[in-house]
Parts: sequence; C-alpha cells; structure tokens
Amino acid sequence: MNTITKEISQAIARLREAAPLVHNITNYVTVNDCANALLAIGASPIMADDPAESGDITAISSALVLNIGTLNRHTIDSMIAAGKRANECGVPVVFDPVGAGASRLRNDTVKEILELVKIAVLRGNISEVSFVAGLDATTKGVDASAADGRRDAVSVAGLVAEKLGCTVAITGAVDVISDGKRVVKIHNGHPMLSKVTGTGCMTTALVGAYAGANRDAFVAAAAGVASMGIAGEIAYKKAGQVGTGSFHIAILDELSQLDFAVMEARLKLDEA
Amino acid sequence: MNTITKEISQAIARLREAAPLVHNITNYVTVNDCANALLAIGASPIMADDPAESGDITAISSALVLNIGTLNRHTIDSMIAAGKRANECGVPVVFDPVGAGASRLRNDTVKEILELVKIAVLRGNISEVSFVAGLDATTKGVDASAADGRRDAVSVAGLVAEKLGCTVAITGAVDVISDGKRVVKIHNGHPMLSKVTGTGCMTTALVGAYAGANRDAFVAAAAGVASMGIAGEIAYKKAGQVGTGSFHIAILDELSQLDFAVMEARLKLDEA
Amino acid sequence: MNTITKEISQAIARLREAAPLVHNITNYVTVNDCANALLAIGASPIMADDPAESGDITAISSALVLNIGTLNRHTIDSMIAAGKRANECGVPVVFDPVGAGASRLRNDTVKEILELVKIAVLRGNISEVSFVAGLDATTKGVDASAADGRRDAVSVAGLVAEKLGCTVAITGAVDVISDGKRVVKIHNGHPMLSKVTGTGCMTTALVGAYAGANRDAFVAAAAGVASMGIAGEIAYKKAGQVGTGSFHIAILDELSQLDFAVMEARLKLDEA
Repeated sequence: MNTITKEISQAIARLREAAPLVHNITNYVTVNDCANALLAIGASPIMADDPAESGDITAISSALVLNIGTLNRHTIDSMIAAGKRANECGVPVVFDPVGAGASRLRNDTVKEILELVKIAVLRGNISEVSFVAGLDATTKGVDASAADGRRDAVSVAGLVAEKLGCTVAITGAVDVISDGKRVVKIHNGHPMLSKVTGTGCMTTALVGAYAGANRDAFVAAAAGVASMGIAGEIAYKKAGQVGTGSFHIAILDELSQLDFAVMEARLKLDEA
Repeated sequence: MNTITKEISQAIARLREAAPLVHNITNYVTVNDCANALLAIGASPIMADDPAESGDITAISSALVLNIGTLNRHTIDSMIAAGKRANECGVPVVFDPVGAGASRLRNDTVKEILELVKIAVLRGNISEVSFVAGLDATTKGVDASAADGRRDAVSVAGLVAEKLGCTVAITGAVDVISDGKRVVKIHNGHPMLSKVTGTGCMTTALVGAYAGANRDAFVAAAAGVASMGIAGEIAYKKAGQVGTGSFHIAILDELSQLDFAVMEARLKLDEA
Repeated sequence: MNTITKEISQAIARLREAAPLVHNITNYVTVNDCANALLAIGASPIMADDPAESGDITAISSALVLNIGTLNRHTIDSMIAAGKRANECGVPVVFDPVGAGASRLRNDTVKEILELVKIAVLRGNISEVSFVAGLDATTKGVDASAADGRRDAVSVAGLVAEKLGCTVAITGAVDVISDGKRVVKIHNGHPMLSKVTGTGCMTTALVGAYAGANRDAFVAAAAGVASMGIAGEIAYKKAGQVGTGSFHIAILDELSQLDFAVMEARLKLDEA
C-alpha cells in the first residue's frame, strides 16, 4: 500500500473520531442528501444560509461548504459573509461551482467568491473547473459536457490548483485531484452515479467533512472523492439493477458502512 | 395498438434519445424527487429560481416547468421572467398550479402567470384546474377535494383546454388529457400514489421532459401522466405492502426502467 | 394498560380518521421527510412560507408547525403571521426551536415567537429546550450536546412547561413529555435515529398531526414522540444493519403501518 492510499484510508478513521460540525450553504435540491451523507460518513451537518447568522454558524464549525446550485442574492451574501469568517477563523472552505458557465449570475458569483474568499478545495466537473479558472469551457446546465475531453483533466487540475493556490478535485469517469504539486487519479465509481441528483454535491460535502477532521486538504479532497466512488460501486452491485431510486438509497447505506478496511481494500488510485 | 398508444410509447424512446435539459422553478418540498424523476426518465434537470438568471437558464433548456407549491414574490418574478423568455425562444411551458384556490397569493399568481405567459400544458387535479379556469371549485390545501366529482373531468378538461388554448391534464383516479380536440382517459396508477408527496409534481416534471423531446404537447402530457401511472402500479406490486417509504423509492426505480415495451404493454387508455 | 397508554394508542385512530391538514413552516433540509411522515401517519401536509399567504393557509388548517432549522427574515415574518392567525382561530401551534443557542438570529427569533405566539407544544432536545426557557445550555449545532445530562430532562420539562404554559417534549435516549402537571417518560426509539437527518423535525411534524386531531396537547405530544420511537425501533430491526439510507426509508414505511394495535403493544412508557 502506497503512502497516499494509507493516508486516505486513515482519514476516514480520523473523521469518524472527530465528528466535525460541517456548515453547508448549499442548494435546496440536494440538501437533504448532503445532510444524510455527512451523517453517514460520521460528521454533523448544519445548514444556515441567512446573512444574519451564516458567519456565527461558520465560527463554531470545523469546515464550510459553499455550493451554488440554486443561487440567489440572499445566499450569495451569506456565502461571502461565511467565507470571510471561515478565513478569519482558519476554517477550511470547500467550493462547488455548480453550473458555472451556465448563466451570468453564476459566473459573477464565482468571480465574487474567489476574490473575497480563500478556498481550500475546489470540486467540480471539468467544464465547471475550467470555467472557474477562466479556461475555455461551455456548460450544458449542471452536467459535464461530453465534449470536454477527459484526457486533459490532469493538466486542467494542475493549472487551476496553481492559479488559485488550492486543491482541485475534478470528478468524472476518472477523478483527478491536484494541489499543484501532488496529483492522484482515482478509478473508483460507476457511471450510474450521474443518474442520481446530488452525487456531486454529496461528494463536495464529504470533502468538507474530511477537511474538517484532516489538516491536509489534498488528502481530504481525495478521501471525499474516493468515498463517493467506493460507496457508488458497492451500491451499484447491490442495487444497480433495481433502478435509480434503490441505487440512491444504497449509496447512503454504503457511505454509512465505510471504514478504514473498506477504503484500503477498494481504493483504485494512481499517482499521475 | 391504436395510434395514440403508439405515439405515447414512442415518445419515451425519443425522450431517452434526446435527453432534454428541463428547467424547473418549483417548490422546495418535492424538488429532489422532481430532479430524480427527470434523471430516471432520461432528461437532465436544472433548477434555477433567481430572477437574475431564470431567463438565461430557460434559454438553454428544452422545456420549462413552473410549479407554485411553495410560492414567494422572488420565485413568482422568476417564473414570469422565465416564462416570457420561454415564449420568445419557443420553449414549451408546463404549469402546475399546486393548491390554486387555497390562498389569495396563489390565486393572484395563477392569474398573473396566465396573463403573461403562454403555456403548453396545464397539469393539476380537478379542483386546481377548475379554479385556474375560473370554474367553481374549493381546494383543501394541495389535495383534490373528494367532493369534486370525477365524472366531470372530461368536460372540465375540454372546457379549460379551449379557454386557455393549451393541453390540459387532470390527474385523479382516472386521468384525463385534452387539447380541446383530442381527449384520452388513462386508467393506470394506484391510489397509494396520493400517500407519497410529490407524485403530482413529478408527473408535471415528466410532462416537461416529454414536451422537451416531443413537439406534440398532447402526446407529451399523456406520456408524462402515463409514465407516473405505470411506474406507480408496478411499484405498488413490488413495495406497496412494505410501506410508503419503499413505495416512494420503487416509483423512482420503475421510472428509470420504463421504455417503449413497458409503456406499450401496460398503457390502459381509451379515447373519450 | 394504563390510561395514558390507552389514550396515546387511541390518538392514532382519531388521527387516521380525521386526516387533519397540517401547515408547516419549516426548513428546506428535511421538509420532504416531514411531508411524507405526515402522509404516512394519516395527515395531509401543506407547506407555505410567504408572509402574503401563511396566515390564509393556517386559517384552513388543523395545526401549525413552526421549525426554525433554516431561518431567514422572510420565514420569520411568515411564522409570526401564521402563529398569530393560529391563535385567533384556535389552531394549535407546535414549535421546534432547532439549533436554539447556536446563533443570535435563532435566539432572537425564539424570543420573538414566544412573545407573539401562544404555543401548544414545544419539541426539542434538552439543550434547545433549556435555551428556549432561558436555562443555561450550550448547543453544538443542531444536535444534542452529550454534556447535557439526560438525568435532568424531567425537571427541565416540568420547569419549562410551567414557565411557558404549554406542553414540553424533550426527546433523547429517553423522551420526556410534561405539561407541568402530567409527566411521562417514553423508552422507545433507537440511537440510530440520530444518524438520519430530520427525525427530530419529523417528530415535531407528527406532534402537529396528532394535535390537529386530538384536543389534549399532552396526549398529542406523547403520541407524536412515541410514533417516531416505535417506527424507529421496528425500522432498526428491519434495516438497521443495511445502513442509514435503508433505515431512513424503513422509518417512513413503519410510520405508514402504525395503528392502535402496534402502538398499544409496543409503547414503553412510565409516568414519572
């Protein structure tokens, strides 16, 4: 077992012991799944998106997750207030630029957040991440465009990580995590994960949970991404043939069963 | 197999091939189910309800679904902005007047939307549809009143379709779809569908998915309603005795398994 | 079978017969589960949180449930408008002060609601209830702090019930319900209930359902708390080993199967 595999597998043990409180300002489509994914992995979720309290809640939390899936001015202000407070308090910020590129509001918001908040981990598909960093990309709604070309994910992740000075996690058929120095590719997961809404949002929430219990953001990002991939592939074996509803529930089941041994045995990772 | 049965069954094949992006401005109670129902049937969901982006998102979508289940001024403005843009772009608008009749806000909103937006399909229970068209009705919250008298659904649907110049889908023990010229009754479904929140909202979302991939709004409405009915009756056989939680998940499972063959074999339809 | 056990068991029969409409102004994290829990237990849910309609909806409802899980100024105004209207119309108000103590906004809101609205039942964990009543407590997000000391729940419940003049339900390893005169402890439930988001919110919604169909708020509170405990312990036997996703669904299944016989046979209650 190589070092990074060991570190990722140990990260879940630390997470389950620490039970970090994770503050989420996220969309109302998948928020219930994010809360249940956080509980399943051993964290404690709190959702609070009013500017009058978002900073207070961040201050008592171990990580902050920002997700722009369903934006409005109200939540944008909350995200910025919470993000600034997180930076002051040393709370890691995980950012999911859902649908970046799809509307001017989303694009402006991404720009505003990146200018005002120092983020620890950026998690998105390749078109979203490319857009965030000002690389050329088009977005069809909130799904990855087939035309994005997975072969470039390693170079995109590295480029964006250096540009933003953070860890970047690009999820897709193969997931790529880079902090500009270290890079790993993760080969877990299953295509059916794209047939359940919120698997991306849950992945970002999981990264937040790991970041709240582990100092190394690169390890946290890899562990979060790997957790969803491993849970997804076990879930597919158990429920994939039944349909997307049962598969959805099985993902949460498997997240709640994940531990050091499962992670260590199943992680398919290579250092790019 | 009659013509309309064939057309409805073919509609799902076209939908799964086209994978239309469906923009939903909907309530926060059942939004996750709507997103998962859309994915299950082969569409791609996007939810965006800020007036600053709702038009932009509609412009890149193949259908727009408006659902007034949890209204506020903010989402009303978004619905109107998106609806107008949809009309400009030729994007079909599907409207679900949840709880019409239950409050002045809902009634005023229905009026405002109908004045400013040309809709392709109206989907509701008989009291909601009657209220929308100014026919006499009382609404007990968001459920169909038992006193509504199912026997009139055909005449109500036809009347409202002519008045509004759109397709009308009235769902109930027997579903009725009319565009003022054509009328079908669909006898699929199961009473337990009323024991899971969101089955109406999901039906409307499915109609949006079909409308995004099929030009004939009447066929799209019938196909959306039939999909929920068929998924519901199979789900009941598999999980109805277990309880409403498992039945809920089974509905999504069966939606994800629907195809031409299942639709063709199970559709119980007569032309009224 | 003692009197209170009989009254609680009879309460579900009355609820299923009355099918009360329950108006919920609640958080967007667990709102779908609350709606499904209400349907499962035999009530009819309606969610409406705009100040322009919240009073109207309350006026046609049999109970009002206020839950501050995800607050904003908009929903605070709605809660107060609906609460006042409920008091005018004799509609019982059930209040869930989620995360009270965690931010100034929540604390101010709790104070504002208690000043302006007469509540029938207060349902929370011991730290939330203690905080609401001005007793010393600290809150770690929305979960009960382990340091709270369950042994004091009986005295806290009695104290707060007298202070606020309402029924108080403190849920935890052992649940305590008090109206200042009567006190019961309920020993149903399972620790895994804390691993699914919304089991507290659903319990509060269930109390609302019972309060909408039963005049005695003390009995309604005990029946709502007992329903979740009993459903949870049966669900654990069926699905607890599978994981938290399946357990979640099983809770809803068991709520939908609850009846007089199950309640009577399983209720573990003692009068403190």
